[in-house]
Amino acid sequence: MQHAKPLPGYLVQRYQGWRATTFVDNKAWYRRLAQEGQHPRAMVISCCDSRVHVTSIFGADEGEFFIHRNIANLVPPHAPDGDHHGTSAALEYAVTQLKVPHILVLGHSNCGGVRGCHDMCSGKAPELEEKSSFIGRWMDILRPTYERLAHIGNEAERLRAMEKEGVLASLNNLMTFPFVREAVEAGDLTVHALWNDIGAGAVEYYDETEKAFLPV
Amino acid sequence: MQHAKPLPGYLVQRYQGWRATTFVDNKAWYRRLAQEGQHPRAMVISCCDSRVHVTSIFGADEGEFFIHRNIANLVPPHAPDGDHHGTSAALEYAVTQLKVPHILVLGHSNCGGVRGCHDMCSGKAPELEEKSSFIGRWMDILRPTYERLAHIGNEAERLRAMEKEGVLASLNNLMTFPFVREAVEAGDLTVHALWNDIGAGAVEYYDETEKAFLPV
Amino acid sequence: MQHAKPLPGYLVQRYQGWRATTFVDNKAWYRRLAQEGQHPRAMVISCCDSRVHVTSIFGADEGEFFIHRNIANLVPPHAPDGDHHGTSAALEYAVTQLKVPHILVLGHSNCGGVRGCHDMCSGKAPELEEKSSFIGRWMDILRPTYERLAHIGNEAERLRAMEKEGVLASLNNLMTFPFVREAVEAGDLTVHALWNDIGAGAVEYYDETEKAFLPV
Amino acid sequence: MQHAKPLPGYLVQRYQGWRATTFVDNKAWYRRLAQEGQHPRAMVISCCDSRVHVTSIFGADEGEFFIHRNIANLVPPHAPDGDHHGTSAALEYAVTQLKVPHILVLGHSNCGGVRGCHDMCSGKAPELEEKSSFIGRWMDILRPTYERLAHIGNEAERLRAMEKEGVLASLNNLMTFPFVREAVEAGDLTVHALWNDIGAGAVEYYDETEKAFLPV
Repeated sequence: MQHAKPLPGYLVQRYQGWRATTFVDNKAWYRRLAQEGQHPRAMVISCCDSRVHVTSIFGADEGEFFIHRNIANLVPPHAPDGDHHGTSAALEYAVTQLKVPHILVLGHSNCGGVRGCHDMCSGKAPELEEKSSFIGRWMDILRPTYERLAHIGNEAERLRAMEKEGVLASLNNLMTFPFVREAVEAGDLTVHALWNDIGAGAVEYYDETEKAFLPV
Repeated sequence: MQHAKPLPGYLVQRYQGWRATTFVDNKAWYRRLAQEGQHPRAMVISCCDSRVHVTSIFGADEGEFFIHRNIANLVPPHAPDGDHHGTSAALEYAVTQLKVPHILVLGHSNCGGVRGCHDMCSGKAPELEEKSSFIGRWMDILRPTYERLAHIGNEAERLRAMEKEGVLASLNNLMTFPFVREAVEAGDLTVHALWNDIGAGAVEYYDETEKAFLPV
Repeated sequence: MQHAKPLPGYLVQRYQGWRATTFVDNKAWYRRLAQEGQHPRAMVISCCDSRVHVTSIFGADEGEFFIHRNIANLVPPHAPDGDHHGTSAALEYAVTQLKVPHILVLGHSNCGGVRGCHDMCSGKAPELEEKSSFIGRWMDILRPTYERLAHIGNEAERLRAMEKEGVLASLNNLMTFPFVREAVEAGDLTVHALWNDIGAGAVEYYDETEKAFLPV
Repeated sequence: MQHAKPLPGYLVQRYQGWRATTFVDNKAWYRRLAQEGQHPRAMVISCCDSRVHVTSIFGADEGEFFIHRNIANLVPPHAPDGDHHGTSAALEYAVTQLKVPHILVLGHSNCGGVRGCHDMCSGKAPELEEKSSFIGRWMDILRPTYERLAHIGNEAERLRAMEKEGVLASLNNLMTFPFVREAVEAGDLTVHALWNDIGAGAVEYYDETEKAFLPV
């Protein structure tokens, strides 16, 4: 491990500020979380994007949300092939071990991952088609969504549609996991499709009756 | 998509509260984030655990950290096999597209994923050995760490050692990605190994000179 | 007062959200409530249990319900002995000062207080029999109910019966307060016995004709 | 039970509305709450007053706060005399059984209970001095606070001071309970003194350093 470096000074300072305030004022809560384990109310699957923090939007405290973050908030389809599947493992842990009652999939505007998929599929980013491109191979999950929406003429509209449809595709993939389907059918789990417009500070949810994303 | 449900009422209320305060007071910043894209200062790889929010510990604002969260904050070794690799895709995006100058891997105490790996490897959780167990297959990444530490007699100490060594194993795996190694060697990227004691509110970092985790 | 600590940050955030939305949008109403005092439509006596909020179930706005919450939603019998009686004081204030037209006593499933009384009376929790046990002495109010129902063989049924009969016992105790009895007899006050099944989201009321709790 | 009446129609309607929306959309959460019991983050001691609902101010969902409500949000001093003590029982349950990490005592403006105590102590409400007055005997808990503040010339200021000092008196009484003191001293519990100005929609907390209530 000849590469690990000490933390940058500004982060040391912030950590010490957190410790002297938030932690000290809530010591008993942190101790209890350590002793009794977590009982989160929801799993959230959201993007790594630095502009979308679900803890901020939903004012979450420590202990509330079990959060998996990956590029473009994707859920791959169920594939029990013995390989490493980080998203599938997180799902399995949340549903079968923590028994979370809600899963929220939160997409967002201006998503770099969705843009990458779009450019790859439309021939503008051939480097992403290479076998060795992890971004490309990950975004393959969204390829069928691109194909369904390729007819939309306006690029900005096409990208936005891909962001929203991508959330629905992830919800469909969610349901291919037997433990998810069973929990949903037993009434032990509900799933939610959300999309955040970063610049407008707006969150939309998918409404089954209207078959559309509507303002929350 | 006959399964998507509206957002629970308490989350609607919290979102509206966030929108009327944090968002409204920082509208210009969110607009700029939407228009100019993200320029995060660091990538963080941390656990999905609901008790460890790096945005809280490091007081992060929108736009600062590109955050990947998976079970037990693992980085798998470089494997350009054409499969979906969520963690590798996030890494590639952060390093080659966003050119983040720091990567923080943040482990923590009382980690359910590490406990699962420990129980699987010590024969106490045979169900995790099955091919179809996503948790088990994901935690295979940490199996060599278990084997190196199996000699530690006290279970609590063994688990804590696995949590910390797991962070170092992830740093080692990080360096197997050519784009990471090149960025580190070019001085464009520094990597940091961290571990958070939930109940004590303490963060430790790996110090290369001392070959040990020390308090920040 | 060397012990008071500032409010945890997540509650500060939620309060500010409430203030920027609910309060700001209803400023005139809050101002009027402050100036003219309260004129609630009902007094509710319910349990402290965090899972049963009458404001949620009955969509209550500020100003509507005068709410007393204690362990197991009990009303002790009338005892004008000069001691502190929190429940009796709340009752007297609601009926003689606020002249509420309704009193609702709301019991619920899975009640920890009722379970404690059951275990104490059946010899399984001798520590609750001690004079110094506030929980035990408070739950003594329900002891006659236990005795009437001890013959029910199945424990889950016995507990459920105690929860419901406990509400009726409280209604009987209510009527031992002269100011309650007079208001009821004058037609100025009606009283209601309710029971909430948390997991089923169902509320039942006591029907005098059927001599049973029926779905609302 | 010849007195129990069916629920008023408007409450039946609201309950059915809650059931068809909030409950149905969160069925899994309610089921889990019923099965796994409550793990609240805080106990709140607040007034019965219909204008102050902590669930609203702090956007609380089911499961978050264990709430005891009595006239004037009082905590009586520790008195293990074998009598029924509803507040003491609630405290004992929250601290020793639920092991809540926070207790919030929330006072408020325009408090009828505090006004009653004030009028009683200043000779304006002799009926409250009678042994049979439950309100008077309950408000006796606040009598020492009145005496300390009787010198304040302006009545509105005196009342406000009593409301705030009353919260501090309750915190002092809290500390007379051995199980509270031990939990605070062990770092397992923190206590908070709050006061809500109804008309201004403002919450203040007691700051130990400033020895004053400050805006949150």
